[in-house]
Amino acid sequence: MHRVAVAGASGFAGALAAYLVQRHPRLELTTVTARADAGRRLDALYPRYRVHKELEELDPDALAERAEAALVAYPHGAAAPVVQALRERGLPVVDLSADFRLDRERYERYYQAHEAPALIDEAVYGLTELHRDDIREAKLVAAPGCYPTAALLALAPLRELARDAVVDAKSGVSGAGREATGTTHFVSVDENVSPYGVEGHRHRAELEREFGNGFPVTFTPHLVPLDQGLLASCYVTPERGVTPEEVRELFRSAYDGEPFIELADEPPGVRDVRDTNICRIHATVEPATGRVLVFAAIDNLWKGAAGQAIQDLNLMLGLDETEGLA
Amino acid sequence: MHRVAVAGASGFAGALAAYLVQRHPRLELTTVTARADAGRRLDALYPRYRVHKELEELDPDALAERAEAALVAYPHGAAAPVVQALRERGLPVVDLSADFRLDRERYERYYQAHEAPALIDEAVYGLTELHRDDIREAKLVAAPGCYPTAALLALAPLRELARDAVVDAKSGVSGAGREATGTTHFVSVDENVSPYGVEGHRHRAELEREFGNGFPVTFTPHLVPLDQGLLASCYVTPERGVTPEEVRELFRSAYDGEPFIELADEPPGVRDVRDTNICRIHATVEPATGRVLVFAAIDNLWKGAAGQAIQDLNLMLGLDETEGLA
Amino acid sequence: MHRVAVAGASGFAGALAAYLVQRHPRLELTTVTARADAGRRLDALYPRYRVHKELEELDPDALAERAEAALVAYPHGAAAPVVQALRERGLPVVDLSADFRLDRERYERYYQAHEAPALIDEAVYGLTELHRDDIREAKLVAAPGCYPTAALLALAPLRELARDAVVDAKSGVSGAGREATGTTHFVSVDENVSPYGVEGHRHRAELEREFGNGFPVTFTPHLVPLDQGLLASCYVTPERGVTPEEVRELFRSAYDGEPFIELADEPPGVRDVRDTNICRIHATVEPATGRVLVFAAIDNLWKGAAGQAIQDLNLMLGLDETEGLA
Amino acid sequence: MHRVAVAGASGFAGALAAYLVQRHPRLELTTVTARADAGRRLDALYPRYRVHKELEELDPDALAERAEAALVAYPHGAAAPVVQALRERGLPVVDLSADFRLDRERYERYYQAHEAPALIDEAVYGLTELHRDDIREAKLVAAPGCYPTAALLALAPLRELARDAVVDAKSGVSGAGREATGTTHFVSVDENVSPYGVEGHRHRAELEREFGNGFPVTFTPHLVPLDQGLLASCYVTPERGVTPEEVRELFRSAYDGEPFIELADEPPGVRDVRDTNICRIHATVEPATGRVLVFAAIDNLWKGAAGQAIQDLNLMLGLDETEGLA
Repeated sequence: MHRVAVAGASGFAGALAAYLVQRHPRLELTTVTARADAGRRLDALYPRYRVHKELEELDPDALAERAEAALVAYPHGAAAPVVQALRERGLPVVDLSADFRLDRERYERYYQAHEAPALIDEAVYGLTELHRDDIREAKLVAAPGCYPTAALLALAPLRELARDAVVDAKSGVSGAGREATGTTHFVSVDENVSPYGVEGHRHRAELEREFGNGFPVTFTPHLVPLDQGLLASCYVTPERGVTPEEVRELFRSAYDGEPFIELADEPPGVRDVRDTNICRIHATVEPATGRVLVFAAIDNLWKGAAGQAIQDLNLMLGLDETEGLA
Repeated sequence: MHRVAVAGASGFAGALAAYLVQRHPRLELTTVTARADAGRRLDALYPRYRVHKELEELDPDALAERAEAALVAYPHGAAAPVVQALRERGLPVVDLSADFRLDRERYERYYQAHEAPALIDEAVYGLTELHRDDIREAKLVAAPGCYPTAALLALAPLRELARDAVVDAKSGVSGAGREATGTTHFVSVDENVSPYGVEGHRHRAELEREFGNGFPVTFTPHLVPLDQGLLASCYVTPERGVTPEEVRELFRSAYDGEPFIELADEPPGVRDVRDTNICRIHATVEPATGRVLVFAAIDNLWKGAAGQAIQDLNLMLGLDETEGLA
Repeated sequence: MHRVAVAGASGFAGALAAYLVQRHPRLELTTVTARADAGRRLDALYPRYRVHKELEELDPDALAERAEAALVAYPHGAAAPVVQALRERGLPVVDLSADFRLDRERYERYYQAHEAPALIDEAVYGLTELHRDDIREAKLVAAPGCYPTAALLALAPLRELARDAVVDAKSGVSGAGREATGTTHFVSVDENVSPYGVEGHRHRAELEREFGNGFPVTFTPHLVPLDQGLLASCYVTPERGVTPEEVRELFRSAYDGEPFIELADEPPGVRDVRDTNICRIHATVEPATGRVLVFAAIDNLWKGAAGQAIQDLNLMLGLDETEGLA
Repeated sequence: MHRVAVAGASGFAGALAAYLVQRHPRLELTTVTARADAGRRLDALYPRYRVHKELEELDPDALAERAEAALVAYPHGAAAPVVQALRERGLPVVDLSADFRLDRERYERYYQAHEAPALIDEAVYGLTELHRDDIREAKLVAAPGCYPTAALLALAPLRELARDAVVDAKSGVSGAGREATGTTHFVSVDENVSPYGVEGHRHRAELEREFGNGFPVTFTPHLVPLDQGLLASCYVTPERGVTPEEVRELFRSAYDGEPFIELADEPPGVRDVRDTNICRIHATVEPATGRVLVFAAIDNLWKGAAGQAIQDLNLMLGLDETEGLA
């Protein structure tokens, strides 16, 4: 059993991470921390996860004594110093924030001044299917954002073929986080669908990171009235005419043997992947225009956050990638 | 007062049409008909509309005696013979089905053999903002589909500028009609978002009709867990670089004075237009790619069906276009 | 035209009140005020109401100059001083808060110290169907809470017959107000049903007020995942055996001619009354136990708040009770 | 490994039963059957369960050859002959329908003529917490209805104390089954709450069965806009005055050591038990009236159907009751 701490377990992704560690056959959850909610029990905040542990103030020394590895789920900006403190104490870390997903220049352009720039170089981008070998060797993995996870898995097999791409993404409200705001108020979301961040959502930075600045990708997120689930609908202009069969073959060969990629004959709904670490993908060609259409569905809290973090942690600890996620 | 019949009042669009006629200050609802539900009262099917009238079997002679004009809301295929019978009796008709929206060749390619082809030529496509003068003179108006209504209003001001377009549309479940099917079962839709008809939804035909076959428009509808509301997110590659201000000016000049077009500074949500005949539009340019983004929200049952039908009928009867819709 | 101000127009009930005044054929909306949101436009907060007015800081003198009557929709505690300031300037007022619904003793037991106790005696409890004549003469009307409105309309015709009652009420989230909290976060409400305030919700005080302390009424509210709508399911042990027909006759005679009471043959759903001022009621007798069952559905923001406030204001101003509410 | 068949796996409860058998560490799913959907794959109907098996026509001989035990999830009436055929071949059976929950007289009063009356006597009512010892010995267990499961678990500890009870129950739409009807259409349920079966829902029969005909229990189900979840709000008039602490002690002693009963300090929401076999209960006393209030939340498809069926099957097979359900 590997002893694992979850720092920042009171948010949606952190709480799920704690739950996934607790039920994991090879991990033991030793510590959960929070800031404002320190002193409360995690099962009071999230009865359904049944993690009967008290949230503590973060004490890096105490944490490092009780844990061999950590998942950090603080908000961006707040995460970097925590990650640094834990790395200094030798713990391998998977960070769920944006703090180590980007090079410094891009991070500071999309987010803010970086709190621990010296660590950026050692961080590996934790999109497991695309960076598995590096993750295995890493001591610091940055779990990708939910939108980039779905979009990159949808577009990666088309990298050679694509001239440009439009990504129209729809996310459930858990993706907006636990903070109670006008945006997350039930009455704002119910019976509504709305685009947001249309002139430059920060997750765009991760698309640029993987595809390069030159690739013209349009990315627009939408909020939809559901809890967990994210669909990326991707519209790709190919460099040359392709058949649906060619496109499907690209996906089959890219994802052959992948335990968490499911290639479907029909467009996926987000219900199909709820509470799983699976990315379900359907790719085809629109007859009228020849455009390649790819639809990728994930659970934003699982494959888009805590599930993928566990997948990465499994690799870092030398475990089977699927342990605790089936 | 103009006496008006609604033929096919038991479906979602027909029932709303009956309600809108009933509360209209210049129209009088004289007859409502249905097929399977004949004999039942409309307020038993739709308590909230409070139309205390019995649904009758269609009898064109009786209907023509009691009404000066008709709204027809039968399904495609079933509508054409009804429209023909009413036109033969001299009634001006707004048809809410697809039967008179397309030329014969396109109709028969996307739908089925046409039941009343002789009438096609007299039909005017009832997208009010684009064909107002023709509607005023028409005796037969084909109210557009919900998706084309939003997409065409979003794209029309860009017709000269656009090199291509991707339309990613999201619709509430009322757009799928009243028939109880696996698709419309609550459990299929709840906590779900799913694309459908991705290899060629029939509403594409109306986009082709207005833009010409040559214009490469990708169109993908998605079902979202809400009742009434439709958002068309449109991604347009411009022929040349444009500024957001130029784009907004195109929309301002296209829609100046339009009573049911609302140009918004922020992306609209479908809640903003629920139970109204308004199309709320936000247009901008994505800084990273220069693509023009247009978001158009309507209520699929109002501006996307029955509301627009009343708007058209007002014009046909020489009334103010907004009567009964404010 | 009567000039009307809405003080506290940024909350859900106040914003609807402003909308209802604006579209009212005999009222003119002259002023809208808010506290935190002063300076913002009401249509920026609530696009769908299309009230294109700026929210002002409350200035009682300026308000009294521009308005002949006022609707006050501040939270309890904050409302009383505002009501007092406006009453001192001679304006008839409908207050939507709890501040004038109860005698002082009961108010201070359920809420807090009263800020304007001298006014309590002049206030009339604005449940229109039960206190119409007093409302007509009143200068200060306290619009009832949403739960008491439905429960009292359901139980009033049974007052002589009932030995006790259980009221199990279900409300949409708009009833919890606009404040963003853990309770109103989409993720807390979605796919959930939960009781709250089970050991004594404050709306119980209004039931006691009308029925007397001695009547043993159990009252439990539940939060359900929808926006607008409230259902009170009432279970009444009758003093003596009654038939369904007797029960229905009690309701028919109690509510004969009432414009906003709808007696239904089937149990109502809250959808049936959405966006209306109607209370839809079904009463019957459970064969197995002889208990009287009454189900009353309202829209909590309309008949449960702003709609009933307008109904009351109409009476105070000598207008037809239904004006602007049909 | 015990080989298990699920007969009637295309409905909501049957499909979940198949999924639970498949992931069970001590069971092996050998056969799934269906009527209309025979020939289709179960994962085509329910992608999220990932049961990659073809649905077969029921052939009792073939089934009995491949399975040692069976879960039967056909509708009432259709289930009895299937159960009979499997019992004749010696298989222990858990039946999820109503066919073996009641004595013949009561069954035929609430349902219809019984198809296999000779088997009624050997059937044990499968509410595990109340009939565990009998279930262990049984060859035929009738899994209780979803409403009775929650109501009986809420009321059982009060049996001695209660003079009468009102059960106001709220269920998600999956409880209404997979059939697409007007009732289960998304547009009927969305933004709605509605009582149904108010003059005598069939699940009342199971309350009578356990409590005796004489106990005056009012039972009213309501449909709420969510998928999985059921809340029973129970209002009990006690024979004598009781304190909250006394009430809680009754529940603690009744359910001490129960693996699937969770006694909570606060009223439960159905989210708290989603996708679990847990019944979460809060009991208290209303200060104003002295009534005992009990709120019991379950997942109607788990503890209210397939989960409890597995719990029963575990006992029948001599396994730990919690296997495959944690």
